[in-house]
Amino acid sequence: MSLKPKLSYFNYRGSAEPIRYLLAYGNIEYEDCRFADEEFPKLKPTFPYGQVPVLEIKGKMIPQTLAICRYLAKQSGLYGKDDFEAMQIDAVADAIIDLRNAVWLAYWITPEDERAPLVEKLTKETLPFYLSRFEKAIRENNGYFVNGNISYADIVLAGQLESLSDSTKYDITDGYPLIKALVKKVENLPRIKAWIEKRPKTDG
Amino acid sequence: MSLKPKLSYFNYRGSAEPIRYLLAYGNIEYEDCRFADEEFPKLKPTFPYGQVPVLEIKGKMIPQTLAICRYLAKQSGLYGKDDFEAMQIDAVADAIIDLRNAVWLAYWITPEDERAPLVEKLTKETLPFYLSRFEKAIRENNGYFVNGNISYADIVLAGQLESLSDSTKYDITDGYPLIKALVKKVENLPRIKAWIEKRPKTDG
Repeated sequence: MSLKPKLSYFNYRGSAEPIRYLLAYGNIEYEDCRFADEEFPKLKPTFPYGQVPVLEIKGKMIPQTLAICRYLAKQSGLYGKDDFEAMQIDAVADAIIDLRNAVWLAYWITPEDERAPLVEKLTKETLPFYLSRFEKAIRENNGYFVNGNISYADIVLAGQLESLSDSTKYDITDGYPLIKALVKKVENLPRIKAWIEKRPKTDG
Repeated sequence: MSLKPKLSYFNYRGSAEPIRYLLAYGNIEYEDCRFADEEFPKLKPTFPYGQVPVLEIKGKMIPQTLAICRYLAKQSGLYGKDDFEAMQIDAVADAIIDLRNAVWLAYWITPEDERAPLVEKLTKETLPFYLSRFEKAIRENNGYFVNGNISYADIVLAGQLESLSDSTKYDITDGYPLIKALVKKVENLPRIKAWIEKRPKTDG
């Protein structure tokens, strides 16, 4: 059993980048294991629920982006000052993942010839719905999602939105200055900034 | 501001029942606010992300089933003995909600005339995929999901699966004796048993 955690994902930022941001933030050494798209069918049965990202740590394969992010958040003091704040942070993180899932469904999971109505609904309804609520939450909480302090929800936002914009082919944060500012703040955290500079360049 | 938490949901077990189970388990008094289906469009804009269940507590409206469940779990000692165990519990809970979302999509969210292929995929692939993995996890962990101890993931399973079977119109746990046994164990916890006996009878 390796003591260094191993993160398995496609060679994209995608759903894994929030985890990579949190690993960078926590200064945790890990193996950033990336496989080619065409290898996934072969690897799929080796993952607990056939999904990635998976973090292999202390001899266990752990699936689910947010379960992993929350664990890393706890190691780095990014999970609020008490259980009540933690619940609010968790609720935002879940909403970000709901939005991500809607983008993945419209742009990737649905067969190509059936995507158009989903993309239209996403662009006209789902994205503005979530993003305007994120913007409002950040306005009401002094530049972060919850109670004016950085939490893992802020890191998940920054780590996730860029790859959603790669899918839509336009910057989904245009028109949401407070979201943009929060993302920028996270990207400028020294260890995350260093990660962004050295990470593999990928198109999603 | 009322000190008693208020849970808002449709007059179904549905996505709210895991929360109601955890409220019962924790012996927490709350207002079980149920609205008729036709009231939802009017109420929707009053909920943070237009979704229910929502728990109003300490003056805040908190959405997201699992954010709420995790908070309640922490109050009742159902969140594992350490962060590593908590991560495994969270990952299972997320998988249960992924399965729930697939059932809701196939049976409720998709327009009725487009449901057939989704229902077929759900029945033939998605349900057996998740349920066989749940069965295996319970086998490997002495009758519970994680490390032989009860956690909120077990309660979420029991609180959620029954309403999924209401959607499919057959008992989705048939053929999975360890899932059945775990659900039964949870249903027989005295406070949850008392809740099941007194709760409103609803068809979902």
